[in-house]
Amino acid sequence: MAFRGSSNETYYMVTFLSGIEYWKGVYAGMQAAADDLGVKTVYTGAPQYDINQEVTTMQQVIAKKPAGILVTSINARAMTPVIDQAIAAGIPVISFDSDAPSSKRYAYLGTSNYEAGQKAAEYLGKTLNGQGQVVVVTTPGELNLDQRTQGFKTEMAAKYPNVTVVAVENGNSNQIQTAQVTSTLLQKYPHLSGIFATEADEGTGAATAVKEANMTGSVKIVSFDTDKATLDAVKSGLITATIAQGTWNMGFWGLMDAFAIHHDLLHPVASWQTAGVDPVPPSVDTGVTVITKSNVGAYLQ
Amino acid sequence: MAFRGSSNETYYMVTFLSGIEYWKGVYAGMQAAADDLGVKTVYTGAPQYDINQEVTTMQQVIAKKPAGILVTSINARAMTPVIDQAIAAGIPVISFDSDAPSSKRYAYLGTSNYEAGQKAAEYLGKTLNGQGQVVVVTTPGELNLDQRTQGFKTEMAAKYPNVTVVAVENGNSNQIQTAQVTSTLLQKYPHLSGIFATEADEGTGAATAVKEANMTGSVKIVSFDTDKATLDAVKSGLITATIAQGTWNMGFWGLMDAFAIHHDLLHPVASWQTAGVDPVPPSVDTGVTVITKSNVGAYLQ
Repeated sequence: MAFRGSSNETYYMVTFLSGIEYWKGVYAGMQAAADDLGVKTVYTGAPQYDINQEVTTMQQVIAKKPAGILVTSINARAMTPVIDQAIAAGIPVISFDSDAPSSKRYAYLGTSNYEAGQKAAEYLGKTLNGQGQVVVVTTPGELNLDQRTQGFKTEMAAKYPNVTVVAVENGNSNQIQTAQVTSTLLQKYPHLSGIFATEADEGTGAATAVKEANMTGSVKIVSFDTDKATLDAVKSGLITATIAQGTWNMGFWGLMDAFAIHHDLLHPVASWQTAGVDPVPPSVDTGVTVITKSNVGAYLQ
Repeated sequence: MAFRGSSNETYYMVTFLSGIEYWKGVYAGMQAAADDLGVKTVYTGAPQYDINQEVTTMQQVIAKKPAGILVTSINARAMTPVIDQAIAAGIPVISFDSDAPSSKRYAYLGTSNYEAGQKAAEYLGKTLNGQGQVVVVTTPGELNLDQRTQGFKTEMAAKYPNVTVVAVENGNSNQIQTAQVTSTLLQKYPHLSGIFATEADEGTGAATAVKEANMTGSVKIVSFDTDKATLDAVKSGLITATIAQGTWNMGFWGLMDAFAIHHDLLHPVASWQTAGVDPVPPSVDTGVTVITKSNVGAYLQ
């Protein structure tokens, strides 16, 4: 009965912009694992995009002496001290989605954004039969998005050398701006056959511009993430495909890690704590899935 | 009681060179998870370094209709069909240590060899106070070892620019050859202050040569893995440090993955099988630990 907790054992999830839809997928995975283990979970976070607010939330959670914490960090440097404070208090901390790599958290579970970009290129290159001009709409300077762009470009060049990335433009993670940028691109490249949007609002913005130009279907759009607007656009054909992150895996296996540490189920060597051994795998790629019309139904349920 | 199996539920581990000590660490982790879950395990594999032998072993295991298989592949291409055959038979297959990335296995758990090389460089650079000449003894052409070498060189150049890698030599994964190669290097570079051996036999071979030259301690050796000879050499000071792989994590979390799939505990989306969703994180870095005199005791127990 090792994997059975007690009913007063509570694990917290701490986020920033805590109201956004994206975290719900992570928390659903955490709740599923908690049900399986017979423990409780609490969702909390900073409602705003505010560093101090998330640090304060973490401090409040630590004061409750929870059995474990799953946290995504608004800012790695700002969150490191409070994560280390939790570890010092004997609370297992697992990091997900947005890491604080220099902190003492036991593990990080998240998307390999470079590989996500590679998957987008593989899908788009195949869909275009290895021929054509494509553009990337992204927000340069945002690390995750830059990695997606880099993975896309590298993979396309390697696997589909006759698909040319003719431009990388700034959509500023904004629908309206992206629609404008895309309209300009459609005029400049009348034979454009594909768009990779590295972020969901850029995906729906690009879809709007392509629709207005009556080019839906002839310009294939690959977007990112699984908010309702994106999934609906995949279903209706405005967006050809979107890259889903393994949010459920982050929550499920994040909680499994925290539980295993809390219950000391891990003993690869005697006294792993002082020996500096990782009690759980320190870095976990939670995977991505290409969602198209053929499998979007499973996600819309 | 989700994480409680039945006593007739059996999971297999399949290896090549099945008698070597290295796999014991992985199997110990698998057994620990099996005890926690109340299921059985069986260890098997190809005794020789023989592709056909491992393929045949897999076929024999599939015929027993086990609850799951953890496998390390002697050769990715040769093992892919038989792994896919197991998946087609409804058996969850998890890959560890040596992957078959194009197969349909659900996940791979293993060491990031590039990062392992980086850790070796970090430790050796710090130990040398950022000054000196070092060499790498490795077996060029072996992918894992090449990645360790590359990680070591890149990290050393970035973090310790005054530590110069003066040579990368072939020890051919052999103690005697490495001792000879190292003797030559010690004559050629009389001020040598460090050696990184990317493989255990090269580590003990280098230690023999350094000892014969009466330079133990003045030439720091960082080796790889945790066989008894290496750990004893760390304890006695012949080897300064060795890089331990997270073998226990491979076995423990590999079994957790197989169990979770077998029991269908994972339902991030309805019908994940047909939707192409990863039911478990597809890629897991199981971590490395630097072992020195100060923590070798925990490993020798």
